[in-house]
Order: sequence, then C-alpha cells, then structure tokens
Amino acid sequence: MTADFRLDRTLSAPQLEDVLRQVGAERYHIRHPFHRLMVDGALTRGQMQAWALNRYCYQATIPAKDAIILSRIEDRALRRAWRERIVDHDGDATSPGGIERWIQLARGLGLDAEVVASQRLALPATRFAVLAYLRLVEKRTLLEAIASSLTEMFSPQVIGERVSAILQRYPYIDADTLGYFTPRLTQAPRDVDVALAYVREHARTQDTQQQVVDALITKCDILWSMLDALHFAYVEPRFVPPGAFVPEDAG
Amino acid sequence: MTADFRLDRTLSAPQLEDVLRQVGAERYHIRHPFHRLMVDGALTRGQMQAWALNRYCYQATIPAKDAIILSRIEDRALRRAWRERIVDHDGDATSPGGIERWIQLARGLGLDAEVVASQRLALPATRFAVLAYLRLVEKRTLLEAIASSLTEMFSPQVIGERVSAILQRYPYIDADTLGYFTPRLTQAPRDVDVALAYVREHARTQDTQQQVVDALITKCDILWSMLDALHFAYVEPRFVPPGAFVPEDAG
Repeated sequence: MTADFRLDRTLSAPQLEDVLRQVGAERYHIRHPFHRLMVDGALTRGQMQAWALNRYCYQATIPAKDAIILSRIEDRALRRAWRERIVDHDGDATSPGGIERWIQLARGLGLDAEVVASQRLALPATRFAVLAYLRLVEKRTLLEAIASSLTEMFSPQVIGERVSAILQRYPYIDADTLGYFTPRLTQAPRDVDVALAYVREHARTQDTQQQVVDALITKCDILWSMLDALHFAYVEPRFVPPGAFVPEDAG
Repeated sequence: MTADFRLDRTLSAPQLEDVLRQVGAERYHIRHPFHRLMVDGALTRGQMQAWALNRYCYQATIPAKDAIILSRIEDRALRRAWRERIVDHDGDATSPGGIERWIQLARGLGLDAEVVASQRLALPATRFAVLAYLRLVEKRTLLEAIASSLTEMFSPQVIGERVSAILQRYPYIDADTLGYFTPRLTQAPRDVDVALAYVREHARTQDTQQQVVDALITKCDILWSMLDALHFAYVEPRFVPPGAFVPEDAG
C-alpha cells in the first residue's frame, strides 16, 4: 500500500480492517487543530457556539442519510439493524434521540434552539460537506455508502477526549448539556459491528476494498472540512462568510 | 426586503433583477479576500497554482451540471440555447473549449496537466462545493437550477479585474495562459440573457422569486466557500488538509 492508501493487492478481512484503522489514525478529525484547541480548553464560548450550531447540520441530516441507505438495502435483517440508527437520532416515545439532544447541547451553550434548527446561520461549507455525504450515499455503491459510516470506529475516542476535556475546562458546560454523547458510546460500536460485517462480506477484491478505503477517506474529509471551515471563520483568520453566525464575543 | 434578502412582496421583473444584482454586489466572490490578494499581485506562484488546480474541479463539472439542467428542460428552443454552454466547455472540432483552456492555464502556472485533471490533490471543500452545485441542479426546481447560473451576471467584472491584474502583476503569466477568460466575456452575457429571460417568465410570485434569490445566494456561497478553503489552506493559517496539494514554495 502506498502513502495515500492505494492498495496493491487483495487483503484479508483483518488486513483491510487494519488499513481502515490506519485511515482513521491519519485522517480522522481528532487530529484537527480545532479539535485540539477544544480539548485544550482554548476555545471561547462563541467558538463553542459556532461549533455546536454548525455540527447541528450534520446531526440533523443523519436520519436522511441512513434512510437513503435503508432504501438501498435488500436484506431485511440488515434493514432492521440499520433502522436502529434512525431511531437513535430521531428518538421514540421513551427517548428524545440524538438530534434533540444536540439541540439541548446548543441551548446549554446559550444558543436559540429555533435558530440552530433553522440552520440558516450555518457556514455554507458545513452545508456542502453534509450534502456531499448525502450525495455519496445516493450515488455510490451500497458498499461505499455503508463503508462511509465507519468513522464510527473512531468516534468513541474523540467523544471520550471531548467530553472529559469540556467538563474539566469549560466551567459553564455541565454533564447534562453533553447528554448527546453518552448513548453514542454504546450505539457507535454496535453500528460499527453491523457495518464492518457487511464490508467484510462484500469487499473481497482489491477493487471493492479500494472503494471501501476511499469511502472512509471521503467521510474523514467531510468531517475534517467542517472543522477547517470553523477554524477559518472563528479562529484564524476569522473571516466569517456573508450571512453566517457571528458570535457575541467575536472581537 | 430584509437585510438577508427575504422578500416581503411580489416584485416586477426589473425589481427582481435589481435584487439579484444586489445579491451579487454583496455576496459574489469578487469581494473575497483571496480575490483581493490575487488582484493586488500578492499571491505566490504556489498560491496561484493552488487556485488553478482547485478551480479546475469546478470547471470540469460545468458540463455535467449543464447536462443535468438540459435533461430537465422540456422546451426544445431552450434546450438548444442551453446546449451551447456544454459546447463552450467541452469544445468542438474547431475549438478546444473551456476545460482544455483551463488545463492550459494550469500548465502555464507550472502544474502537471494529468495531476490537475485527476483532481486528486484538490481540497475536499472544493469538491464538496462542486457536488453541492450538482445536487442543487438535480434536486431543486428547474427554476432554481437555472437561477443558480446567474452568477454569470457578475463574471465579466471579476474576469476583467483578474486578467488585467494578473498580466500586470504576475510577470510569469502571459495572455496566452489566460486564454480561458477571453471567450467567457462574450459567452457569459449570452448565457445570462437566456437564463434571465427564463427567470423573468417563470418567477412571477413572491415564493418563486424568493427561490430565485436563494438559489443565487447559494451559488455565491459555493464560489465563496471555494476561496475560503484556498485562503485557509494556502494563505492563513496555511493548514493544508491531509492529502491535498502542497505548493513547492510553501514555507
């Protein structure tokens, strides 16, 4: 394999999983400077608001993304398993679901829930990254659509870092506000098991394995570019695009 | 009309056109800091290369964008008119077309044509902006798809500024290298006439006029976000995303 993840032969399932983990180690947004600033406690309240407001666009689109994938799965057992993701984000009679929990996080940071939900102050780059994710699951093969969800392999680590650092270093944020993240720590590994089993079963040639790797890279790029846009608009050089959110503490 | 272009009544065709020009005056990328640096002669050769390499992704997608619109037009005369755009970009037996001219520009800046055409070193944010454009013309109404092309109302101005500044301030770039832009100065106004006539005919209610305005804003956001990404990666703070182009003169 080359430095930019070009495979040169067919891999065994464990070897493929190793490559996927290596993609994560190099390209998951845990390595992004904006995330580092967050866990170092270096972000202002306005910067945290900008993060929550923009990330909402991603959260709010997950059920649409998963419904598109659901519509493409022919196996009923897999559809049943995949359906859980929509329940997790949209909630049910007993639980509010991830999107509502994210609104709660945004509100805890002092944002207006209606403004966040309207997405009208989000950075265009955030919206475009999210639309690219939708387009990937619509247009690429089902294998690639499913593989693109595998960033969840790495999410417990980023959540762990984020939550403990935020509770320690941002005194105005409490555990209740961060309620979004707790269920994710068990949901994500369950989802990964389903997606990895599918990938293992359906990516048995060099070409399909390359597709899987590339889909995961694209998904890492999507998450990374969202932090690029936040960093550019709210950290350095702080050029907020026309019409986007301007924090009260922007100076 | 409010500051963020929310219409409060149905406009006459000239009033609608005024609002569209106002969108351009406020949100077209001629106002972006990266464009200002370019016309001030302040960009390095590597930064100019990054611009040409990324902008290629946009150029290369235009025929796909226009083919999607073409596939949605029911009026044969309008299809004939719209078809010209594809000819302009893909060329014919007598003329190389815009995409090939853009490759020539990139080559004139010292880039490898194959690398540029592969798009593999482009910024993910560039790709996502371009995909958002494709998704807009696929998923929104035909009126919105056509209206999104109206940034061409403003392109002769940006081209005029760009070409004269580049020839004056970047001694290593000659008029031949900038051959892409000359035909655009006549093609764009012709295209605008067609698109504006359609918009005038089909946007006669407040709702459809709002759709037209919003489509133009989204298109401005697409162009703007491409320069945001360039500025972030190559001007300040120069955080190049994993896998993207690194200019030789990056220091």
